[in-house]
Amino acid sequence: MLEQTTEMNLLYDFYGLLLTERQRTLLELYYHDDWSLGEIAEHQGVSRQAVFEAIKRAQATLTDLEEKLGLLQKHLKRQKIAEELLQRLEEMPEARAIVKPFVSELVDID
Amino acid sequence: MLEQTTEMNLLYDFYGLLLTERQRTLLELYYHDDWSLGEIAEHQGVSRQAVFEAIKRAQATLTDLEEKLGLLQKHLKRQKIAEELLQRLEEMPEARAIVKPFVSELVDID
Repeated sequence: MLEQTTEMNLLYDFYGLLLTERQRTLLELYYHDDWSLGEIAEHQGVSRQAVFEAIKRAQATLTDLEEKLGLLQKHLKRQKIAEELLQRLEEMPEARAIVKPFVSELVDID
Repeated sequence: MLEQTTEMNLLYDFYGLLLTERQRTLLELYYHDDWSLGEIAEHQGVSRQAVFEAIKRAQATLTDLEEKLGLLQKHLKRQKIAEELLQRLEEMPEARAIVKPFVSELVDID
């Protein structure tokens, strides 16, 4: 299991463009810039409770998108397969040198 | 460029779960089962125009999702990289035999 902040940051990377502008701003302040709920509330001139609920809803949207599309899970699975492949080629250094950049690209496209 | 029906079928495979149940039904009848607008309209007891507009909206949603997440483009890019890698290994049959199933898995996870 990933730690919640890490997981939310990753889900945000995958699905952020499907959120509203306001949801993106909130999640960036909270998870990326590490502001507190109180700081965000003061900065935006709304209640702490309003910020809390908006972040909760944005989190729920990200979690729902991951349940439906599974992009984070697929990414982690690709990373694992790539590692296994490079391990399998450990005793074939010439082939490994050819394969490695291709495999990195296959994983990094996400 | 992919032919429109093919492209819509692919986008549906990637993003169908983000559509409503009704949108999924319409697109399946229209693109997958190849019903006409008139047949769908009769079957659902609505006007042909209503079916036409609902399908247009569903298509627009799929196109918008692809613009934001690019899953189809990424998939096609992965297929290309995989082909290039296997070509590069053509004269290393032992390595190629090891690499091929891993690379297929990396591409097929989508």
